[in-house]
Amino acid sequence: MPSFQTVRGMRDLLAEEAETLNYVICKARETAELYGYKEVITPVVEPYELLSAKSGEEIRQRMFTFKDLGDRTVALRPEFTASIARLATTVLKNQPKPLRTFSVGSVYRYDEPQRGRYREFWQSDFELIGSSKPEADAEIILLTNSLMKSVGLRNYAFKLGNVGVIRGILSQEKVDEKAQNAVLQRMDKKEYDEAFNLIKSESCRKKLQTLVELKSSGPLETAEKMRAHVQGYDEAAAAADSLLETLKLVTESGCNNVTVDPGFGRGLEYYTGMIFEVYIPELDIALGGGGRYDRLIEVFGGEPTPATGVAHGLDRIALAMKMQNTTLKTGQKKKAVVIPVKEEMKAEALKISQSLREAGIPVELEVMGRKMAKALEDADKRKIDYAVIVGERELKEGAVVVRDLAKRAQTTVKIEDLAEKIKG
Amino acid sequence: MPSFQTVRGMRDLLAEEAETLNYVICKARETAELYGYKEVITPVVEPYELLSAKSGEEIRQRMFTFKDLGDRTVALRPEFTASIARLATTVLKNQPKPLRTFSVGSVYRYDEPQRGRYREFWQSDFELIGSSKPEADAEIILLTNSLMKSVGLRNYAFKLGNVGVIRGILSQEKVDEKAQNAVLQRMDKKEYDEAFNLIKSESCRKKLQTLVELKSSGPLETAEKMRAHVQGYDEAAAAADSLLETLKLVTESGCNNVTVDPGFGRGLEYYTGMIFEVYIPELDIALGGGGRYDRLIEVFGGEPTPATGVAHGLDRIALAMKMQNTTLKTGQKKKAVVIPVKEEMKAEALKISQSLREAGIPVELEVMGRKMAKALEDADKRKIDYAVIVGERELKEGAVVVRDLAKRAQTTVKIEDLAEKIKG
Repeated sequence: MPSFQTVRGMRDLLAEEAETLNYVICKARETAELYGYKEVITPVVEPYELLSAKSGEEIRQRMFTFKDLGDRTVALRPEFTASIARLATTVLKNQPKPLRTFSVGSVYRYDEPQRGRYREFWQSDFELIGSSKPEADAEIILLTNSLMKSVGLRNYAFKLGNVGVIRGILSQEKVDEKAQNAVLQRMDKKEYDEAFNLIKSESCRKKLQTLVELKSSGPLETAEKMRAHVQGYDEAAAAADSLLETLKLVTESGCNNVTVDPGFGRGLEYYTGMIFEVYIPELDIALGGGGRYDRLIEVFGGEPTPATGVAHGLDRIALAMKMQNTTLKTGQKKKAVVIPVKEEMKAEALKISQSLREAGIPVELEVMGRKMAKALEDADKRKIDYAVIVGERELKEGAVVVRDLAKRAQTTVKIEDLAEKIKG
Repeated sequence: MPSFQTVRGMRDLLAEEAETLNYVICKARETAELYGYKEVITPVVEPYELLSAKSGEEIRQRMFTFKDLGDRTVALRPEFTASIARLATTVLKNQPKPLRTFSVGSVYRYDEPQRGRYREFWQSDFELIGSSKPEADAEIILLTNSLMKSVGLRNYAFKLGNVGVIRGILSQEKVDEKAQNAVLQRMDKKEYDEAFNLIKSESCRKKLQTLVELKSSGPLETAEKMRAHVQGYDEAAAAADSLLETLKLVTESGCNNVTVDPGFGRGLEYYTGMIFEVYIPELDIALGGGGRYDRLIEVFGGEPTPATGVAHGLDRIALAMKMQNTTLKTGQKKKAVVIPVKEEMKAEALKISQSLREAGIPVELEVMGRKMAKALEDADKRKIDYAVIVGERELKEGAVVVRDLAKRAQTTVKIEDLAEKIKG
């Protein structure tokens, strides 16, 4: 007898859960259209070397990696960015810039399962390739804001940072990229002491520590203090300028729920500039996050190409919607069941069902061969609006009996008027 | 440098290809709604023993099977039915019957790649669980007919059979299930001689061969001859009756493009009764297929439960649409680019973009910092409808310049009238 359970960390989504996830996917796709992001569909299975190239040690170790029957080492994608970078360096190489892509689908990480964290989860991914400007970073944040708003979330807030500031300080102090990655990974986990301990130079450690501990009364002041703090560190200062401008563009466009965190790091190695995450107060995990990755396309063999992007955790957004009791704005159509009174009416019942569906009405045909009372009782339980009863006598006059299951009232209706009657 | 290519047999779907696949998914979801099938989302990764239980030797050997980090033997789903059977025997066990489920997503088989056959491909799957009636089988065929019609396909035809007729003859002649599966697998490949050679009994072989070679002038006559041919074989005769009734129900409901093939087999081991496939003349591979599997739920540890279902090959349907030059019926919205004349207008340009998007207009913001002429040229190339030019002088009067890129004409428009102007 086969196994009855899903693989650990993977889930079945049924009824409302499936409906909510599809609703969020639909809103993400609408957002993509409104911001000019073209959908691309890439494989779930990709070469291991593509996915592992710049994902960071942590994700690398948690990938579902295996050999296919052709002895290729492949893995299930842990995110979309590597696949999009592949496109940008191959088939889409000669497309005019900026390139705006949208992807949505399941991704895979071997994490310890917990609320909002599964081994198979869903992301929508937006990438904006070809622009180094703060307005590109602002657009990525603003489209995330639009998505949050469109699914009905409230009180969500953005955390904004710029790894370019931190990397800029470290670079100037001769800390190599590998060591920088290690520092940022610690900072991502808020293990600041461990992060600082990785830095040998006393002055560099001090500079970074003071940066992380900057205090201020609002995001604008934080960004300005960051800029002042890194005077003399050219790369870091440019990153701080960019952060300040992105912040201004975002807030002036009506997104006011932004905090700036100078010690903010993100686990993925490919980030080079702006980074951000979005949260709701009810959940301590991010609903989405992204940032700028100006060197990834180059690492993948393309021309040096600046880029920025975001991934939204769609399961988490669905969870957030549940926690905030958000209601889905979907049009509810009237539904019908069609029940033949006798075996001999089956073919007619089927024909009537087909014509109602052609008129756009969801129809369930009685396929269990049940007695009328039983079939009606079942339809009632399942909150169907109308039962269409196909009987011999009415059929002779080109009619059927329509029962309003809520009102418990029935009338005889000509078949040609049936769709109209049910649509109301 | 990482690998630039997709894994062999896997594809990137871009632009029109992605749009077409999404269109087909959308139509499949609409069909599900119209026929009362509730969407369920199951994992791509499932326990190997679940997927291999009744899939047939051929699929079993072509699964992407591997061990996860927890040493579980798992595989990528080669189809949906096993996952749905798992649901039907666990979380959905106590749901009233009939149970109608709809799933859509990617599935995986290590086949030799060729036109219309990939290692990652897309299916929509409809399962109707709990009814043993011919009208249930007819519904599965009719909803497939609706899907084909709704995506705009022409000249498609259904091939109908019933493995119950073949299994019924073999059972009565004491051929065990394993040997039956081997015979059906050969028949699926139209290797009839090889199939007959697997049968030891001369009389049984003869009975089957005559069945396969039945000739007639139309589907109804074929089905009737099949019934006559298996008189005295009780199980086979019941299956032939069911086939005849399904055929009548389907054709009376307006689906006239059906042929009956007495020697029709399908590779999956779990089929017990009606089987069918749908084709277009331009392609020699099926666009979809399914059938009745009355014992699968039981094998999975559930109560004996009759069931029938279908899987549609969505990539193949997309390919068929391309071959028949089908046009997608999607509403095209007017699109705009928003271009700031100078750096200082950036924040205003962003704000205007946001307000247009809130009015439902797709907007691409100029994020490359390009000169006006260059940005306009680019928008023109990409067939954008309007350019919104944000300049200092007009802004002072609460206005912007709107350029109709097709007509090459421009006017000054108040910002509050902008959305109206672009929507036309």
